[in-house]
Amino acid sequence: MTDKSNKKLWGGRFSESTNELVEAFTESISFDSRLYEYDIQGSIAHSKMLAKIGVLSEQEARDIENGLLSIREQIKTGSFEWSNSLEDVHMNIESRLSENIGEAGKKLHTGRSRNDQVATDIRLYLRQATDQIINFLSALQGALLDFSENEIETILPGFTHLQVAQPISFAHHLLAWNEMLERDVERLVDCRKRINVMPLGSAALAGTSFPLDRDYSCQLLEFDRPSRNSLDAVSDRDFLIEFNSAASLIMVHLSRMCEEIILWASENYKFIEIGDAFCTGSSIMPQKKNPDIAELIRGKSGRVIGNLQSLLVLMKAQPLAYNRDNQEDKEPIFDTVDTITASLNVFAAMIPSIKVNREAMYQAALKGYATATDLAEYLVRAEVPFRDSHAIVGNIVQYAIEQNKTLTELTLDELKSFGSMINEDVYQVLSLEGSVNSRNHFGGTAPKQVKLALIEARKRLELQTKL
Amino acid sequence: MTDKSNKKLWGGRFSESTNELVEAFTESISFDSRLYEYDIQGSIAHSKMLAKIGVLSEQEARDIENGLLSIREQIKTGSFEWSNSLEDVHMNIESRLSENIGEAGKKLHTGRSRNDQVATDIRLYLRQATDQIINFLSALQGALLDFSENEIETILPGFTHLQVAQPISFAHHLLAWNEMLERDVERLVDCRKRINVMPLGSAALAGTSFPLDRDYSCQLLEFDRPSRNSLDAVSDRDFLIEFNSAASLIMVHLSRMCEEIILWASENYKFIEIGDAFCTGSSIMPQKKNPDIAELIRGKSGRVIGNLQSLLVLMKAQPLAYNRDNQEDKEPIFDTVDTITASLNVFAAMIPSIKVNREAMYQAALKGYATATDLAEYLVRAEVPFRDSHAIVGNIVQYAIEQNKTLTELTLDELKSFGSMINEDVYQVLSLEGSVNSRNHFGGTAPKQVKLALIEARKRLELQTKL
Amino acid sequence: MTDKSNKKLWGGRFSESTNELVEAFTESISFDSRLYEYDIQGSIAHSKMLAKIGVLSEQEARDIENGLLSIREQIKTGSFEWSNSLEDVHMNIESRLSENIGEAGKKLHTGRSRNDQVATDIRLYLRQATDQIINFLSALQGALLDFSENEIETILPGFTHLQVAQPISFAHHLLAWNEMLERDVERLVDCRKRINVMPLGSAALAGTSFPLDRDYSCQLLEFDRPSRNSLDAVSDRDFLIEFNSAASLIMVHLSRMCEEIILWASENYKFIEIGDAFCTGSSIMPQKKNPDIAELIRGKSGRVIGNLQSLLVLMKAQPLAYNRDNQEDKEPIFDTVDTITASLNVFAAMIPSIKVNREAMYQAALKGYATATDLAEYLVRAEVPFRDSHAIVGNIVQYAIEQNKTLTELTLDELKSFGSMINEDVYQVLSLEGSVNSRNHFGGTAPKQVKLALIEARKRLELQTKL
Amino acid sequence: MTDKSNKKLWGGRFSESTNELVEAFTESISFDSRLYEYDIQGSIAHSKMLAKIGVLSEQEARDIENGLLSIREQIKTGSFEWSNSLEDVHMNIESRLSENIGEAGKKLHTGRSRNDQVATDIRLYLRQATDQIINFLSALQGALLDFSENEIETILPGFTHLQVAQPISFAHHLLAWNEMLERDVERLVDCRKRINVMPLGSAALAGTSFPLDRDYSCQLLEFDRPSRNSLDAVSDRDFLIEFNSAASLIMVHLSRMCEEIILWASENYKFIEIGDAFCTGSSIMPQKKNPDIAELIRGKSGRVIGNLQSLLVLMKAQPLAYNRDNQEDKEPIFDTVDTITASLNVFAAMIPSIKVNREAMYQAALKGYATATDLAEYLVRAEVPFRDSHAIVGNIVQYAIEQNKTLTELTLDELKSFGSMINEDVYQVLSLEGSVNSRNHFGGTAPKQVKLALIEARKRLELQTKL
Repeated sequence: MTDKSNKKLWGGRFSESTNELVEAFTESISFDSRLYEYDIQGSIAHSKMLAKIGVLSEQEARDIENGLLSIREQIKTGSFEWSNSLEDVHMNIESRLSENIGEAGKKLHTGRSRNDQVATDIRLYLRQATDQIINFLSALQGALLDFSENEIETILPGFTHLQVAQPISFAHHLLAWNEMLERDVERLVDCRKRINVMPLGSAALAGTSFPLDRDYSCQLLEFDRPSRNSLDAVSDRDFLIEFNSAASLIMVHLSRMCEEIILWASENYKFIEIGDAFCTGSSIMPQKKNPDIAELIRGKSGRVIGNLQSLLVLMKAQPLAYNRDNQEDKEPIFDTVDTITASLNVFAAMIPSIKVNREAMYQAALKGYATATDLAEYLVRAEVPFRDSHAIVGNIVQYAIEQNKTLTELTLDELKSFGSMINEDVYQVLSLEGSVNSRNHFGGTAPKQVKLALIEARKRLELQTKL
Repeated sequence: MTDKSNKKLWGGRFSESTNELVEAFTESISFDSRLYEYDIQGSIAHSKMLAKIGVLSEQEARDIENGLLSIREQIKTGSFEWSNSLEDVHMNIESRLSENIGEAGKKLHTGRSRNDQVATDIRLYLRQATDQIINFLSALQGALLDFSENEIETILPGFTHLQVAQPISFAHHLLAWNEMLERDVERLVDCRKRINVMPLGSAALAGTSFPLDRDYSCQLLEFDRPSRNSLDAVSDRDFLIEFNSAASLIMVHLSRMCEEIILWASENYKFIEIGDAFCTGSSIMPQKKNPDIAELIRGKSGRVIGNLQSLLVLMKAQPLAYNRDNQEDKEPIFDTVDTITASLNVFAAMIPSIKVNREAMYQAALKGYATATDLAEYLVRAEVPFRDSHAIVGNIVQYAIEQNKTLTELTLDELKSFGSMINEDVYQVLSLEGSVNSRNHFGGTAPKQVKLALIEARKRLELQTKL
Repeated sequence: MTDKSNKKLWGGRFSESTNELVEAFTESISFDSRLYEYDIQGSIAHSKMLAKIGVLSEQEARDIENGLLSIREQIKTGSFEWSNSLEDVHMNIESRLSENIGEAGKKLHTGRSRNDQVATDIRLYLRQATDQIINFLSALQGALLDFSENEIETILPGFTHLQVAQPISFAHHLLAWNEMLERDVERLVDCRKRINVMPLGSAALAGTSFPLDRDYSCQLLEFDRPSRNSLDAVSDRDFLIEFNSAASLIMVHLSRMCEEIILWASENYKFIEIGDAFCTGSSIMPQKKNPDIAELIRGKSGRVIGNLQSLLVLMKAQPLAYNRDNQEDKEPIFDTVDTITASLNVFAAMIPSIKVNREAMYQAALKGYATATDLAEYLVRAEVPFRDSHAIVGNIVQYAIEQNKTLTELTLDELKSFGSMINEDVYQVLSLEGSVNSRNHFGGTAPKQVKLALIEARKRLELQTKL
Repeated sequence: MTDKSNKKLWGGRFSESTNELVEAFTESISFDSRLYEYDIQGSIAHSKMLAKIGVLSEQEARDIENGLLSIREQIKTGSFEWSNSLEDVHMNIESRLSENIGEAGKKLHTGRSRNDQVATDIRLYLRQATDQIINFLSALQGALLDFSENEIETILPGFTHLQVAQPISFAHHLLAWNEMLERDVERLVDCRKRINVMPLGSAALAGTSFPLDRDYSCQLLEFDRPSRNSLDAVSDRDFLIEFNSAASLIMVHLSRMCEEIILWASENYKFIEIGDAFCTGSSIMPQKKNPDIAELIRGKSGRVIGNLQSLLVLMKAQPLAYNRDNQEDKEPIFDTVDTITASLNVFAAMIPSIKVNREAMYQAALKGYATATDLAEYLVRAEVPFRDSHAIVGNIVQYAIEQNKTLTELTLDELKSFGSMINEDVYQVLSLEGSVNSRNHFGGTAPKQVKLALIEARKRLELQTKL
């Protein structure tokens, strides 16, 4: 009854061939083929190691290497034919190798299982992806720092609760974004340590009876160390979840920046204008120029967060060691890597296209009694306890609203009626420039501090790109 | 400076052409092309309606219809060339239509926006997907009911806390699965009411100045009613989230069934054997026969739950009306529909391949003092208050464990030493058959009840498939 | 070695008493005590049913009822002492009952398990919570409809992509909110059908050997029907997840409304002012008046969505029937019910405090070329195909931006230079009022339509509150 | 109209008092009071710093410190009365301080805002919680290592796909658990670096006009460094999300261990018996002994994962700087810390109560052809390429199943019929001990390796507890 032509590499003990529906359902080749480079890299290292310990001859190892390199070339150039019935990237490549080079090919899988093989592949892939994303983050940081350079003295209203709070330097605001991205890099660097551990040699779950030289494979594949426990090595997917957690934070950060860009580019703010090349129009409203990039990135945060949840649900309550559930670990991670990559790149490209409308920012900062806190601090310097000065200024603001005046429009007499200690010099404190310049301590928004902060940020970025 | 060749349909007011990175980032054609059938269906209805109200001539409407039908044919047969620079399925089709039929094509978008167009497309798509999934659920229910037919008298241990609790009929267990699926169908039927509302005619967000006959479009597209508010119609994505919630429950149900199948198929249970055609082997361990289907479905629950979270995050705090974020609504839903579809189908196909090992089930039910509750209830019938009888039986069980005996292996004297009201007839109560038969009320596990329950379940299923 | 004083009701077979850490870890009394009313209601019905079938005497049933009612009174007035070592609400109440009324109390649990008991309690609780939340939704809808009454003719810019799109009626916008809430009610009504099914009589998982009259219990507790399968009945938590899904959508809706309120109340919009009583200030900035309510509700969407995820993860891959995991079903649901309740109530209370700044809305609508679509539709009526008219208007808008003019500020000559078919009557079309009035079809924003929509919404709300 | 008695500390500009519903809705004192210790610690450091820079006199700083210490004492002993109308922990303490010590108290908030204050408090809290959780993880690791000590030679079946795969050492399995926990510790240590940054001095969002000595506050509070950007410092909640991600992985790990414990304790496995003190019984089934602890912990994974989702949704798309949404950051984190703490502690306590049933493990390992891979590797050593040997053994297994024999029960003749290179020495390879001992490389399951692994694990744990 067995259809020999459809026989699987593991089919020895089976008396029925696989159901077609099942083949379609269980195949992973449609998405894991993208691991081919790492699969081949791992296999070459494995065969070299097998030769080193005498399980393969030097010639066999060389044949395997050449065979694999030629398959890699075929895949790269698109001339490799993938087969669904060979299930996955591993079986496709190994099977072709055996066809091409004969007996040696059938020996490649000695002392190895797909369980440790796929875990190795995905770690090699993610290590490379992590390095690249760190680079993309650095590039975005560079774009932001360049952009900040000209905006140190630009004053815009700082918001809390989306209400005008205090005037700040625009560069200071942009450097807040840079802080987020620096943490993102730090997290990825930490995560990379846990990615870069080698499962190879764990075989199915217990290790193997061949005297593997795992340190040698490790060295060939530039892993930091071999895994310490074979069961753990084939069942651990922590590194994917940790990576996706870090990725979720990146997307949360981008979503916050995008929210602000959308706001700033809206008619009622007009703080910025995004370059035409980064906007799109409407199929019905001819006047529209929409910040689609920012909106799409904001929306894509959902996707990456969803992937994180997929992975957590996937791993919840799985008994050791490997279960087929884990085949579901790849698509979310591929999608997360692709989404982060595209989002960072397009966002970084958009930054230099942004034109700043300094006048609109300044005018907005003049509204909303943004220097009321400065007035309260002025009173504190005149020996009024802070809580009392806060209350006094609260009353002044209420009075000013009733009079429909800004704080600087109040006369000295009006001001003095709330507190006799108020003098002519108060008007300097109430100006936007006076306010901004006064926040002159580490971390504060005074242009002097922002200039220093920018210099330091550049230094750290330089170090980071040398990692 | 404008590259006319790359000019977008909305490009009138733009002075720069779209950045290439942006084009790749914002295109949706790679995934929304799958909506083509619904897009064309909607456009034909729209043009017929425009003709009815005199905005198009009858001839124009006919040209549009024929043009669209011929494009549909091209797409079906794979001869249609999609263009990324035309962004999405709507623009690709409309643009080709204008090329093919001239002026009339340019009139099609009158009184319409992509905002109401895409909302209409996705609702048409999801309505059809919902109907199909209901059919797949019904098919799975049918498979389970067929399977149950022969297992009414089969006794297996019912577990709570994965500890042997009480003997039950295996068909009763399977009918518990059927209950889950029935609720799934009900939820989809309810959800369908909220899917089947027509946004078309809402235009960008405010409606249009043309005197649309929305009832007519509605009738052509077989929607239950036109949407009542244009802003809501273009920004509402509730139906996607509600659908994905129902889908998440379907996957939770399947994950529970799969967990049991994996358990039952494991060496230590051996309650069932899954057909070879639905298992796969190991690349290293020649003896393995793994319940991969069940594991993969269990794992895929993470995916569908992740999609739900993506959509919720997507919609959180979006101001009205349409924002580009919403382009991200499609991929999760497509993935959910595909996952549910494949999982239900392969699961339903697997059911008949399962061989039941009744002896193993029976032997397992004999363990674990499964009829202790029956003994307690026996005592209650002998006038011992339930709490006291519970305590007495607890002591009997502890004694039996110490003696390494089952309950039926205890002598009457031993039993009587715990309670003089225990008589010879107790042994009938302590048998598995006695226990199962005694739970003879609506919803209980007595074979008599299960037989009735099965008949009723079939009747409901019949009604359901006639919906 | 057994500490008899600490002996559990189920302690018969145990030889060691419970570890203290374990007692603290497993107790649920700290949160499930809030189910006491439903637990007592369920127990009274159960005992009446036991009397009806002769398992209890009429006198015993009366004693139980009176005993339970007096315990309920004690709990209500705060004089009941809960004990952690009695684990949960069920054991606390039953144990006290037995102390108070003796033997009859020990008989109450006949033919029942905590598994069906707790499932019954939580369904009774959630049925009542659902009914209440439907009322709160209705109240909020009422507040919105009242508020809309005066804003039918108020024009504000409708946004897409947060860019000015087209002028709309403010009442139309508020009615879009009402649509969301109507769907929320519908979903809860549908969900209620699946909540209102009675598990009682399913016992631990298999039913019981007593000839229960489940229809009678069902009638006493006003359930729609008894559950059909005992295993399913004790392990099903679908209704909690379905409820929390509906609740998540409610919070997503509120978060969207709140996002808009925050935006509209911001300095750069000033479309509305929220009453002082619904704002809070700053501990440092004396001028601040923050829309905290809206922000908190927006933030609380995370909480309810998180609860949904908790429940889905909880149920994933649980084998049948009851597992202790399910004790974790209560806190998320209680939190969701509380959060929804508080959010709906405070939001509804805030609505009438909002003052509309019609002038600011109108001025904002004048910006952003909001009537460009009207111009395009004007051209269509002059026989220009829509796609061409869209392109022409795009050019006009670009020209107007360069001239720093609004559309109405362009002279007829300027307009005619783009299309000779443009005539004097175009200026009517370009006015905000002309634009809004023209969208005069079902679902459109014309005040005439909005007035009708409001009347219909009131009618539906009236029906809804009579449910 | 103002109700002075209900006047808020920020109430200066307000003309209406807060709505009662609003007060209940916005209060955080019901949960943030638990931060009191950190709030006081932060305030003392702040006042000392203010004295150092001359904004307070030394006497004022001393008064403040003593005042705060006495309030701390009151809170500890339960004699402090919290007031809802004072909103939060900060205002309650500051307000009481001013009542108690007069003017100096009103000066405490100089150069500070609740925005940087609460960010400081929560970081101090979480730093301490992180340190404690690391200790609890270490304690659990210690328990596992102690437990492993006696199980190095214990053989149980290693599972993949819950099917018997290969025999392994039970200690090896437990050490796989230990690997998970080691990674958890590493992640928390990395996370702690990002927690331990001081926001204090960022004030509302822009810094302050007082010449703060932030390095001094930093040193007093033992933070690693002051934050670099005031906007970022008050709006950053990354550290909470990163912590909760790490916590989610801890719970995923515990859920996996618990799944195995539940399985192993089930009737059909009986690999282990959990101590009575860590189990609970049934209210209806007197024989039940349920692994409730393991089930509850497994269930609680949902809760912590839900909290992560809450926080991600919370932060998505929030514009800078502080928004009231962020008040919602505390409850999920408190719940996560409490859940992790309780789960780790009770799990660690349960471990020593577990009795291992070595015989049951051994018998189970004998089933399922667990040494088939060893046979394949035997053939490889006899020069059969692995793929061929895999196929041969597949056929042998199929034959053995048909003969209803184990591999060792096959005669040499039978074996030889599949491959002439099979000799008498094969039986050694087919034994469980032979198999286990042969996996003798770094990371493998050979007892020799496991012993070394255990020693190394102890060394690392020792270093870890000295951190």
